[in-house]
Amino acid sequence: MIKWKQRNHPIRLERRFEFESYEATRDFLESLGALSESKKIFPDISFGSTYVNITLRPESEEQDAQMTDVEFKFASEIDEILD
Amino acid sequence: MIKWKQRNHPIRLERRFEFESYEATRDFLESLGALSESKKIFPDISFGSTYVNITLRPESEEQDAQMTDVEFKFASEIDEILD
Repeated sequence: MIKWKQRNHPIRLERRFEFESYEATRDFLESLGALSESKKIFPDISFGSTYVNITLRPESEEQDAQMTDVEFKFASEIDEILD
Repeated sequence: MIKWKQRNHPIRLERRFEFESYEATRDFLESLGALSESKKIFPDISFGSTYVNITLRPESEEQDAQMTDVEFKFASEIDEILD
């Protein structure tokens, strides 16, 4: 969990992953897509040939929504893709 | 080509695509990934459940590099994924 940064305005969790090759990047994105579909959680993702940035926001879209265990657990599950 | 916006500082071509569903978004991303690999052109891509933003930059990384036919052709090929 320590590798994710929590930011505010708006509240969010962010992590950047770097890869050796485009192939490794795509493999990760594919696993991430499958995880998103199974959990029905769809983070914002930016990527180029050798990096992926993931931004997780609170599920609730209310203005004062806080991060919950749902997002922290999903962040851990993303980390586990690379274990 | 008209749907791509050319921007400066740094010079780049951008287009936003919107989709009805996460499944449609993923289908597009998969085709885009295959196209990238076949052309060896790797744009920066941001996406969420129902949108994809693509940023194409000049192949040359020199500071005064200009967009060339390579990028314009690749933009057209991206558009053709959805034709």
